[in-house]
Amino acid sequence: MAELVSVDDIRAAATRIAGRVVRTPLIPYAGGLPSTAAAGRAEHPLWLKPESLQPTGAFKLRGAFNAILQRLDDARAHGVVTHSSGNHARAVAWVARELGLRATIVIPDAAPAVKVDAVRALGATVVLVDPAERDTRAFELAAEHGYVMIPPYDDPAIVAGQGTIGLEIVADLPSVSGVVVPVSGGGLISGIATAIKALSPATRVIGVEPELAADATESLRRGEIVSWTAEQTYRTIADGLRTTSVGQVPWGQIRQYVDDIITVSEDEIRDGVRWLAADARLVAEPSGATSFAAWRHRFESLGVSGDVVAVVSGGNLAMDTLASLIG
Amino acid sequence: MAELVSVDDIRAAATRIAGRVVRTPLIPYAGGLPSTAAAGRAEHPLWLKPESLQPTGAFKLRGAFNAILQRLDDARAHGVVTHSSGNHARAVAWVARELGLRATIVIPDAAPAVKVDAVRALGATVVLVDPAERDTRAFELAAEHGYVMIPPYDDPAIVAGQGTIGLEIVADLPSVSGVVVPVSGGGLISGIATAIKALSPATRVIGVEPELAADATESLRRGEIVSWTAEQTYRTIADGLRTTSVGQVPWGQIRQYVDDIITVSEDEIRDGVRWLAADARLVAEPSGATSFAAWRHRFESLGVSGDVVAVVSGGNLAMDTLASLIG
Repeated sequence: MAELVSVDDIRAAATRIAGRVVRTPLIPYAGGLPSTAAAGRAEHPLWLKPESLQPTGAFKLRGAFNAILQRLDDARAHGVVTHSSGNHARAVAWVARELGLRATIVIPDAAPAVKVDAVRALGATVVLVDPAERDTRAFELAAEHGYVMIPPYDDPAIVAGQGTIGLEIVADLPSVSGVVVPVSGGGLISGIATAIKALSPATRVIGVEPELAADATESLRRGEIVSWTAEQTYRTIADGLRTTSVGQVPWGQIRQYVDDIITVSEDEIRDGVRWLAADARLVAEPSGATSFAAWRHRFESLGVSGDVVAVVSGGNLAMDTLASLIG
Repeated sequence: MAELVSVDDIRAAATRIAGRVVRTPLIPYAGGLPSTAAAGRAEHPLWLKPESLQPTGAFKLRGAFNAILQRLDDARAHGVVTHSSGNHARAVAWVARELGLRATIVIPDAAPAVKVDAVRALGATVVLVDPAERDTRAFELAAEHGYVMIPPYDDPAIVAGQGTIGLEIVADLPSVSGVVVPVSGGGLISGIATAIKALSPATRVIGVEPELAADATESLRRGEIVSWTAEQTYRTIADGLRTTSVGQVPWGQIRQYVDDIITVSEDEIRDGVRWLAADARLVAEPSGATSFAAWRHRFESLGVSGDVVAVVSGGNLAMDTLASLIG
């Protein structure tokens, strides 16, 4: 079994990416739980960690910077490649532009044009493929051209980069009682949990998935990685959380450090997007609002008392979708 | 003539309010000018200072905390009073709740119910009056009950509190070439300009008003305070910028430290709200988006080259209004 990512790896990542990503603040949430209205804040204090404010609109920039900076000589000589239709694609394209590297991004041809355009606008080369060939085509390109592969989550450098969020949470709020984190491939929660458990072992780390894409919830219950089908996971509105199973590297950290993973309904996710806009003035994509939705609607399931942090992981969504969710 | 607010007053305010307001980050804006599309960022770098992320949704919390903490013994003994229908009302009510003080807020009876409810939810006593009696009623209540008056902008302690934003901008971005700030009563821009000119004299400080409420623009051109009528200023969608003239205290700072004040159209303000949501994932109210709108649509008028900061002063607006602006 591979060695686990350590808090020292995460500290090294923090040094590496300092000044290249936004040092997001914790925002006190002034609204309440639905049942307690305005009194909620004092009874159940919530803080938001708005990774939606990264310049690419999601936390993915942290891992991408860390992974690419760790392999910079190779990346400079040969360029980088990845596969993603969403926030990781945009992050890798951004990092490549900032560092002056060539980037090739393999995107399923079913992806919305707006996401493809965003990646192209950053100067990356886009290779459109059948969704089934997404991983294999990227690895083929890496083998063929020597491109450095930057995986979306199943990679220790990616996990360490995302874990820098955990360091910042403990630094800003040493009394934190629980941290709530959206789960897809597991890179985000595994990094955060590793940092939190090293620095504040009594703090609970709780993952959140849509009920319609609850493979990690099931994995944690069964004690092994469980895969769902794309037909299942693609039912959720939370398009960033449709990965069909967590990665091997994240799983090693999750089983060690994550206390629980719970689920939220589609209605709860929609409600989360709405109230983050209204009461926290944050544009969150459905995936990014799941953590907040869990606090608002599944508070008892979190098993926490005291200060809670919800990681708002991203804010990329079409404006007509946002309008329909808040109007 | 009264002594000007100094950068030392602002530094003292920063110490006083530290930990009580959000230390907002600078967010790099990744979108471009309309004419240059995606290339805009590199050519004309813009940073956003999102005061919309304060727990009351606007910068007003800084001045309110500073003014009340400076008069804490009196405020504790007698309570506080102010007049405002918007973000200052909410800020004073918030501070009073945090510090355990009684607060009375005089609100024009024409104010939207949602704003009145927000103030009541924080535990403040609301006194509804005819708009014409707004100032006088608050002063009467202060005289009658000994309440400590916390004016919305015409007060050195308020100016010093808002000026803490300027200290943070220079600390985070010493190379800043220009700072763009919405102008209403002038408390925000006068504080920021005072801090910026003390720490970075070559940095330009530029105010922004709606074309439909351009009293400060006219005042700066004429060299004296010019008042517009409420009939005029209430035409703009930017409901936080409808004050009919700048205050005496802010004016003393503005004439000394502000380089220019320019205007934006209603369409440019609406466009600003939309693109802040889409490209910066920030919910901004129309008033708060005017600075960004000036960068996007009046870039040549700013007279800057290099890094620009736009202060996004607030994010309180009805969700159906936001939906109509972005959809």
